[in-house]
Amino acid sequence: MTATIDVATELEAIRQVKARYCRFLDTKDGDGWRTVFAPDVVMEVDLAVSTGGADPMTSPPYVGVNSVVPDVLATLAEVTTIHHCHTSEIALTSETTATGIWAMEDRLYFPGDRQLHGAGHYHETYEKVDGTWRIKTLHLTRTLMEFLGPWAE
Amino acid sequence: MTATIDVATELEAIRQVKARYCRFLDTKDGDGWRTVFAPDVVMEVDLAVSTGGADPMTSPPYVGVNSVVPDVLATLAEVTTIHHCHTSEIALTSETTATGIWAMEDRLYFPGDRQLHGAGHYHETYEKVDGTWRIKTLHLTRTLMEFLGPWAE
Amino acid sequence: MTATIDVATELEAIRQVKARYCRFLDTKDGDGWRTVFAPDVVMEVDLAVSTGGADPMTSPPYVGVNSVVPDVLATLAEVTTIHHCHTSEIALTSETTATGIWAMEDRLYFPGDRQLHGAGHYHETYEKVDGTWRIKTLHLTRTLMEFLGPWAE
Repeated sequence: MTATIDVATELEAIRQVKARYCRFLDTKDGDGWRTVFAPDVVMEVDLAVSTGGADPMTSPPYVGVNSVVPDVLATLAEVTTIHHCHTSEIALTSETTATGIWAMEDRLYFPGDRQLHGAGHYHETYEKVDGTWRIKTLHLTRTLMEFLGPWAE
Repeated sequence: MTATIDVATELEAIRQVKARYCRFLDTKDGDGWRTVFAPDVVMEVDLAVSTGGADPMTSPPYVGVNSVVPDVLATLAEVTTIHHCHTSEIALTSETTATGIWAMEDRLYFPGDRQLHGAGHYHETYEKVDGTWRIKTLHLTRTLMEFLGPWAE
Repeated sequence: MTATIDVATELEAIRQVKARYCRFLDTKDGDGWRTVFAPDVVMEVDLAVSTGGADPMTSPPYVGVNSVVPDVLATLAEVTTIHHCHTSEIALTSETTATGIWAMEDRLYFPGDRQLHGAGHYHETYEKVDGTWRIKTLHLTRTLMEFLGPWAE
């Protein structure tokens, strides 16, 4: 027997997962941040713009929530962050799987008045397990990366 | 008799209240801005980041739409503002009440090339009266506050 | 016979049109960008803030997708762009027509470290043809325009 799903309800639930991703990341709430990921999440982050075929300098993948959460938060321990997401394009691919693209902008404030300002897109997949949507894969691509302040001395 | 409500419809209506909050505030439309608030709205604004337990320097509350609208707009009379909201987390708590969290970023351009740039979260409650959702309480918390330009002379 | 439409589904489809508008514009994907416009789209862009009755310096209209797409992208050929949209106010006016307002922020990075930073609102209409929503008219109004870097020498 297949239950009827309401697409609008599922899309809203997925959007709120991404809202919590951003909120818990920027408030440095590691326990909260864990809850948005599938146990076997794979995260890749481009460190450079790839427009025109340039090398996006994709990071080695972070694999598994037990690596993603402590490893990413450790790199940001001394950094005030803003991660804002915009205009989602989410589509269900089954009753328990979905894909999504989000426009994003981030500002990372490092010690010494150094700031990293970027824009780009999160390309993601989601999985619903035990009634809860979680991020299964995440790849952040870049349309802008600029280094502000005294990075080069 | 209880009418069946459509959750997606209610959430969309609440999201659009916040859209008008931002639009009327930034276009300095006081008559429009009044319509988004409950008569007895309570608004509190943190003036500092509270990460790590620091004092958030919460403002004294603005109480009532007849205070909030003229008082806030008076403080911004000479200020060009941007208030942008992102990735809402809204939940109905009954057919006529709801809670919400919004990520936000603001830039306030004061005379003399002084700019206040902030990020944080609106923590809100909503109430539906006579078929219209309105903001009942609002507390703005901060993850970033930076003062740009010649603030200190 | 009139099919029942689901408003939440239609609004989501329209929101995703605007998401693709922003994504294809910022990734300079002309083929993709074409798909978001009605053939006879009319686009007008204010070049100045109109608060307080000032002249908004509205551009001559771009008319028709065959002009909008190549003409706008040509002006941006050497420009890295961010166009981010927030907090939509979309309303169906019939089963196949709709209106919308979006808050927006843009940053245009021109050669020579010159940057144009703006905020404002897209005022739009949409039309559904052959099952697909498209942007029919677009007027960008401005609450902020600032020129950063060595514009005046």
